[in-house]
Amino acid sequence: MRIGVDYYPEHWDKDMWQSDARLMNQTGVKIVRLAEFAWCRLEPSDGLFDFGLLDEAVRLFADNGIDVILGTPTNCPPRWLCEKHPSILPVGDNGKTNPIGIRAHRCYNDTKLREYAGRIIARLAEHYRDFPNVTAWQLDNELEANICFCDTCNKKHREWLKRKYGTLEALNKAYGNVVWSGEYQSWEQIGPPYGGYNTTWLNPAYMIDFERRATEDMLEFIQFQADIIRSYIPNAIITTNACFCNHTSDFTAMFSELDVAAYDNYPTACLTSDYENITSTSAFLDMVRGAKRKNFWIMEELSGMPGCWAPMQRTPAPGMIKGYAKQAFAHGADTVIFFRWRTANIGAEMHWHGLIDHSGVPGRRFYEFAELCKEAEELKDIQGSELHSDIAILYSPDSGRAFRLQPQTDGFSYIEQIKAVHQAFVRYGLNVDIIDEHADISGYKIVCAPALYVTDNSTVKMLHEFAESGGTVVLTARSGVKDENNNCIMEQLPTVYRGLVGCHVTEYDPIGRDKAKVRFTDGKEYDCKQWCDILETDTAETVASYESEFYAGKPAITVNSCGSGKTFYIGTVGTRRMYEKAVKQILDISGLAYTEGLPENVEITTRTGNGITARFIFNNTTLKRSFELDGKAIQLDPFEVKIIRM
Amino acid sequence: MRIGVDYYPEHWDKDMWQSDARLMNQTGVKIVRLAEFAWCRLEPSDGLFDFGLLDEAVRLFADNGIDVILGTPTNCPPRWLCEKHPSILPVGDNGKTNPIGIRAHRCYNDTKLREYAGRIIARLAEHYRDFPNVTAWQLDNELEANICFCDTCNKKHREWLKRKYGTLEALNKAYGNVVWSGEYQSWEQIGPPYGGYNTTWLNPAYMIDFERRATEDMLEFIQFQADIIRSYIPNAIITTNACFCNHTSDFTAMFSELDVAAYDNYPTACLTSDYENITSTSAFLDMVRGAKRKNFWIMEELSGMPGCWAPMQRTPAPGMIKGYAKQAFAHGADTVIFFRWRTANIGAEMHWHGLIDHSGVPGRRFYEFAELCKEAEELKDIQGSELHSDIAILYSPDSGRAFRLQPQTDGFSYIEQIKAVHQAFVRYGLNVDIIDEHADISGYKIVCAPALYVTDNSTVKMLHEFAESGGTVVLTARSGVKDENNNCIMEQLPTVYRGLVGCHVTEYDPIGRDKAKVRFTDGKEYDCKQWCDILETDTAETVASYESEFYAGKPAITVNSCGSGKTFYIGTVGTRRMYEKAVKQILDISGLAYTEGLPENVEITTRTGNGITARFIFNNTTLKRSFELDGKAIQLDPFEVKIIRM
Amino acid sequence: MRIGVDYYPEHWDKDMWQSDARLMNQTGVKIVRLAEFAWCRLEPSDGLFDFGLLDEAVRLFADNGIDVILGTPTNCPPRWLCEKHPSILPVGDNGKTNPIGIRAHRCYNDTKLREYAGRIIARLAEHYRDFPNVTAWQLDNELEANICFCDTCNKKHREWLKRKYGTLEALNKAYGNVVWSGEYQSWEQIGPPYGGYNTTWLNPAYMIDFERRATEDMLEFIQFQADIIRSYIPNAIITTNACFCNHTSDFTAMFSELDVAAYDNYPTACLTSDYENITSTSAFLDMVRGAKRKNFWIMEELSGMPGCWAPMQRTPAPGMIKGYAKQAFAHGADTVIFFRWRTANIGAEMHWHGLIDHSGVPGRRFYEFAELCKEAEELKDIQGSELHSDIAILYSPDSGRAFRLQPQTDGFSYIEQIKAVHQAFVRYGLNVDIIDEHADISGYKIVCAPALYVTDNSTVKMLHEFAESGGTVVLTARSGVKDENNNCIMEQLPTVYRGLVGCHVTEYDPIGRDKAKVRFTDGKEYDCKQWCDILETDTAETVASYESEFYAGKPAITVNSCGSGKTFYIGTVGTRRMYEKAVKQILDISGLAYTEGLPENVEITTRTGNGITARFIFNNTTLKRSFELDGKAIQLDPFEVKIIRM
Repeated sequence: MRIGVDYYPEHWDKDMWQSDARLMNQTGVKIVRLAEFAWCRLEPSDGLFDFGLLDEAVRLFADNGIDVILGTPTNCPPRWLCEKHPSILPVGDNGKTNPIGIRAHRCYNDTKLREYAGRIIARLAEHYRDFPNVTAWQLDNELEANICFCDTCNKKHREWLKRKYGTLEALNKAYGNVVWSGEYQSWEQIGPPYGGYNTTWLNPAYMIDFERRATEDMLEFIQFQADIIRSYIPNAIITTNACFCNHTSDFTAMFSELDVAAYDNYPTACLTSDYENITSTSAFLDMVRGAKRKNFWIMEELSGMPGCWAPMQRTPAPGMIKGYAKQAFAHGADTVIFFRWRTANIGAEMHWHGLIDHSGVPGRRFYEFAELCKEAEELKDIQGSELHSDIAILYSPDSGRAFRLQPQTDGFSYIEQIKAVHQAFVRYGLNVDIIDEHADISGYKIVCAPALYVTDNSTVKMLHEFAESGGTVVLTARSGVKDENNNCIMEQLPTVYRGLVGCHVTEYDPIGRDKAKVRFTDGKEYDCKQWCDILETDTAETVASYESEFYAGKPAITVNSCGSGKTFYIGTVGTRRMYEKAVKQILDISGLAYTEGLPENVEITTRTGNGITARFIFNNTTLKRSFELDGKAIQLDPFEVKIIRM
Repeated sequence: MRIGVDYYPEHWDKDMWQSDARLMNQTGVKIVRLAEFAWCRLEPSDGLFDFGLLDEAVRLFADNGIDVILGTPTNCPPRWLCEKHPSILPVGDNGKTNPIGIRAHRCYNDTKLREYAGRIIARLAEHYRDFPNVTAWQLDNELEANICFCDTCNKKHREWLKRKYGTLEALNKAYGNVVWSGEYQSWEQIGPPYGGYNTTWLNPAYMIDFERRATEDMLEFIQFQADIIRSYIPNAIITTNACFCNHTSDFTAMFSELDVAAYDNYPTACLTSDYENITSTSAFLDMVRGAKRKNFWIMEELSGMPGCWAPMQRTPAPGMIKGYAKQAFAHGADTVIFFRWRTANIGAEMHWHGLIDHSGVPGRRFYEFAELCKEAEELKDIQGSELHSDIAILYSPDSGRAFRLQPQTDGFSYIEQIKAVHQAFVRYGLNVDIIDEHADISGYKIVCAPALYVTDNSTVKMLHEFAESGGTVVLTARSGVKDENNNCIMEQLPTVYRGLVGCHVTEYDPIGRDKAKVRFTDGKEYDCKQWCDILETDTAETVASYESEFYAGKPAITVNSCGSGKTFYIGTVGTRRMYEKAVKQILDISGLAYTEGLPENVEITTRTGNGITARFIFNNTTLKRSFELDGKAIQLDPFEVKIIRM
Repeated sequence: MRIGVDYYPEHWDKDMWQSDARLMNQTGVKIVRLAEFAWCRLEPSDGLFDFGLLDEAVRLFADNGIDVILGTPTNCPPRWLCEKHPSILPVGDNGKTNPIGIRAHRCYNDTKLREYAGRIIARLAEHYRDFPNVTAWQLDNELEANICFCDTCNKKHREWLKRKYGTLEALNKAYGNVVWSGEYQSWEQIGPPYGGYNTTWLNPAYMIDFERRATEDMLEFIQFQADIIRSYIPNAIITTNACFCNHTSDFTAMFSELDVAAYDNYPTACLTSDYENITSTSAFLDMVRGAKRKNFWIMEELSGMPGCWAPMQRTPAPGMIKGYAKQAFAHGADTVIFFRWRTANIGAEMHWHGLIDHSGVPGRRFYEFAELCKEAEELKDIQGSELHSDIAILYSPDSGRAFRLQPQTDGFSYIEQIKAVHQAFVRYGLNVDIIDEHADISGYKIVCAPALYVTDNSTVKMLHEFAESGGTVVLTARSGVKDENNNCIMEQLPTVYRGLVGCHVTEYDPIGRDKAKVRFTDGKEYDCKQWCDILETDTAETVASYESEFYAGKPAITVNSCGSGKTFYIGTVGTRRMYEKAVKQILDISGLAYTEGLPENVEITTRTGNGITARFIFNNTTLKRSFELDGKAIQLDPFEVKIIRM
């Protein structure tokens, strides 16, 4: 496995580079990311390019046997450029131009940005294609974090709508614009959703299109950059660093034209002892792997306590540096790059800690990192091996958008629905894929699609066929609610999935922060929250019923036969224990082997390839864990990962 | 009693209208409200009127024996109109023009709005006067919800001030503008209170006038619309739908020139078991009845779980659909119109649930509604009968404004003061009127005026005379604080009411969220909160004293003789139990009959007329209730209303 | 001691002045502050000055033997002036001009403001130099409360930066502008930090300079005003009223060119019984005394419940009016002026209560004030006597700024670090000085410098020399973090202080709202929070170690020998008890005498001078306190201050 670091030569005196590069080499660092915020140094004034410093850094790393990922510096245009062409600056949801100083001050769609970005990317590609240790490229930085509300974007949005709907009549119909007399009489009446793209007061059909188009523009910007690089370096390895898994973006699209998916991975250093609220980043890792359905990179890995705009968090406890990186290996990362080698001593990000503290003196975290580097070398045989899973969880970017726009009940979250189901399978030591709803699911035994809110008919068809041919499908509350325009479907829920699950929702109770109870047929009871679909079975059987509220006795979870497959419908949001209970039944009915009796928050995944099957056993807690696995006693320190080759 | 629904033909395919109308007819729906947001369809472009669709709908309802309330569509001007005359759009408290898309995008005072609104209203009135089933009109929608900060309004405000004060000297004096050197030297210096009409940093005298003038402009807009309709249909029944009782608006003024008061009634579906915090909408209903002191309509009644801009709330429990509607009957509603027949499948309001869910399949709530329709038919004999009360609670719009502008302590609320006193009388099974402070009180035995903060001399005189002639008056803390300009009166509290209540406030302790204790002369103790007036009696006797704080032993509640009447002063804000204790004493001293021993949250009111006296007994809880009333055993299911004719 | 009141003749009818002045005289009021918001009356139109009313008031007070502090009215320019020269209005952090109406509507740097302010101050000085009872001047009002973001300020800021850094290269280097490509290519690119000077997203080096320059501009404005007054009245006593101790401003600079420091003192009237959270204003008083290291004035003293923009607070409990004023005496105030004589009946501040309520009827608080006046007369012998302390706490304005800009962990506060150490010394009945970090410390035995975050080399040197020569130095976590540019120093913490304290921080854990434990060598354990420096001793010895977390056993508090002195390092933020424990050890090692066994929140200070040593014993609680002091039984009522001459 390859370990790397993010490094900013422009932040440090040149005489430190030498010792840094040497120490990296000794420690076992194999790759560094450079230059993604360095535009002002690479092009200090209009058309004057100066790559001398970067050359020196790249060569120094080459001399130390370290590869380089070069960032395109488009996230932070230099001040001279913004001064010359203010249209480059994006506009916020209040209609005001964003100030410079906080990074990300660029509108993807601005002509001038494209012109200047294109020029410098071309220069960089042309120049660095001849540096053999420049082995990969990162485009911009955390591209999915921003949406622009400027006029240029709005004009582009109107064109996008014209292409999509053809006529205003069609658009007005699709949006239900008659509500509140909102029908457009001319295309020019269409403006950006000032007041916030999160606002719950705006038409959800209009809003989802606004977000879809913004995503497409981001993809176009990615393609624009990648094309330039490829025109100089045809087989360049190109990626970009995604973040915000918890914002549920469209990773599959984002990486579709790129060579590898990369993720900024910041698991929490603040752990709770409350089982219901213990967090794991494992679902996010499976989601990033799912983006391209292959192994991925971590482009920024937790190195120290985050902080700056938010208060500083706790320091990673002993074991976390190694444990979280190996957890990433366990889920298919082959390259893990730490953010960052040194903690910045300057700038607004100076309390986002790197491996080495402000002092420059390596400490506990660094030495743990150094151990990781050594141990990673011993995993060479596993490099490139992959996770195979019988279980897929479908993630729908459109549902993510729609839930963000209309948050249902207080506390309801799409990503939590995904994670709840994911965690339950993890409890049984199984690999799980989280993949786009349009991915091919033919190889799986179980496919879960929690809260598949916005409907795509192809997904509906796919799930039906999957069940018919013997697969197990798991759906949950808030599935089939919306059509492709983000309007409500006029059928009893789960609408298009009713035939599949053999039950329907007679009504629902959005219980929010209240609690209700469900009881399985064996008498076991569990709390549930947020949402209660009150079910009536058509052809399904009841797995669990409500034990409280006026619908006590009504089905809450059902199972149905569909062709030679089975389909489950989970009509509520339960505790972790409830999902574990249900998933055991799902596994049993699907005939999958699984591990029982794992201690809480011990995660097991399996990578296979190169003739090796390696089991990763991760103790994601602050406690020592002892247990038996396949007849062997396992002992794990906090955050320890044991890798067992079989 | 008449049951209706709000219906949006423009949202649905025409072929659904037929079945909807037929089902309404079968169910017992007698009236529908139409078209209040349909301007873009009624006038799709400037001067092109197209009432064809609406005609069809109105006729269809006629064919099904259903009357129509027609809405004037002025809440939502069409986009072509806003594009042509952007001055129509209101300005927010930040000085920026409100965007279209969230409804209510119209400034009442804009000339162009008046021109176009006037034209379409005239056309509608001219046209629909010939449709016999169009029996009533609703003006705009929830008119009191918005205040505009535009230049047109500001100019009008300056003219209003000139008329009111004549000279700048008088204005500066009335406002105390010398504070912080705020004196105006020219009328042009007067601007709108950008930064929020809620700001506590601005001069309260200036602010209350701003709100008063805005209310007057709303009244003018109401009059403007009503005049047009009446010019075509002299005896039209005209109303508008008020909302926001909890924002304490000026309902009496709002409906003064209209034929009937109408209210949008959304009792909560989320009930607490904490007695102190159980809510009832009964005070709001009494307040709406008080607006015109006659029976009223519910224009929008809770039909399902609200949601959209706020998270979705819980579904109405079984019994609530019927119970809350009958509670409205119990308080004087003769027409209850549910919002809405169908849940919208489009637009930002799609999670504000109607009687029929998105599915179009009638469910539990619909069937309960259908039962209600049947049961309402059996109440024909009660239709038109009225509530007569010996008890009035005065509501002061100016005090409402003033408390909103200067919120006293954390958690203090004017409407809660009103409701606390109201609830206490409700506990004894009595009818209560909530009426404007300027209403005629001669018929009552008890008049309560909680927190009569802003002083109107005519009210002072009226209360004195009322007590003199044998009535019982109840005042509470924060009475007589302000003069008519919203400045503090320079006398010991309760200033102008001191003679009336025979005691005065030596000092006060704004205890806010802290708790203190009061003790009645019989030794019973109760918690109090928010505010403690430390009293000294002049001629009054002590009813209860403080039992805590440095003023332990000082009077907290007093009773005084005034002429042949009695006056109570409640110097603190207590628990429900405290008010119940005090009110019992008030009732006893006033010689009113009342019912004791009612279970908590069982509400009894009495309607009389047509030779019938009908008692409405409402169980506003989730529990079954059994008790004896006048020697008869009563059993009530949750939210059940029993109507006993006597 | 001198007692005064703030009075606003312009708010009241003239016929009230007479009785007010007479009552003041009878009560014992010796001084009033006048006119600081009265510009619109003093210059009702451009160039037309009318001091008639003020003359009358000043003469009336003279007749009653009462001195006058005259306020320059620059805080509130009249409307005609703002209308004529809108550039006078300051700009908020959102880039928008602040509206008039909330006071403080003036930019210090505006040319027109300077012109008009200069003119009226000159007129006032020229006029009132002949009034013998006008004995002092207050400049503007709470000057440190506002920062302006206008273009004028920005231009001045650029000039300031040019002077400070000379070249853009130097500026870019000092700011680390290369981060996020933020390097300036021209001075014109430098703009104000729109979006809030509190934002944590902006470069901290840029931000600290913005705040430093704004402070300097305030000082310049102070100097500008003082110079004018002094040109007419060479030996005028000039001050201004500072507020916001808890915002930690630069009081030493603010008062450097003024004759006396003055403070607006609003101790809370809401007391908790939770020992950890009981507040005392004693640290603020010591800080104000430290500003000029001499006795000071209270310009506004708590007179009643505050309220208005915030909800009203509780009324001062019996004893507080006297107790808090005497607490101010106890800490070196010789003049205490109450805000305000009468509660305003007009304007936005009408619920910020004065001594006399809206009624105009003197009440409990007034009578307590009257007693205070009498008792103050009996303290004439103490007037002018001073506090001498062996203990100094250093306060760093730059650290204050830097912590405000980058708040470390959730809940971490610089002023709380100062207060925690201060309170611990107070527990032992000792005088404590809080002084600027650049003050002369040669006379002290113990110097504490909690959280000395931003480094000034002269302070470093001074502390070293102090310890070398036998003093005791106490440092805490977050010392030596930043260099003078607010960038992080690249050495192990506490960097420049490592040699002094003989230990270093191997790493830290920002535990925030979590709790950890420390254990002293005698086995006593205490909770700590917010921050844990994990220490390694160089030459120091361990005083306390952590007892929890992965660093259990590592030193948390150390003591070192340095020359003939001792240095303590407290690496965490503890409970009050923890600081008390540590401070006892510090006192013992320093050989200072102290009092043990004082009840909680009994504060003792000692003033000496005129041959008298007076001990002030203040019971800052709601409970009676009995204890023995130097063999004498002491009994204190709540908030009572006993003064014992020795």
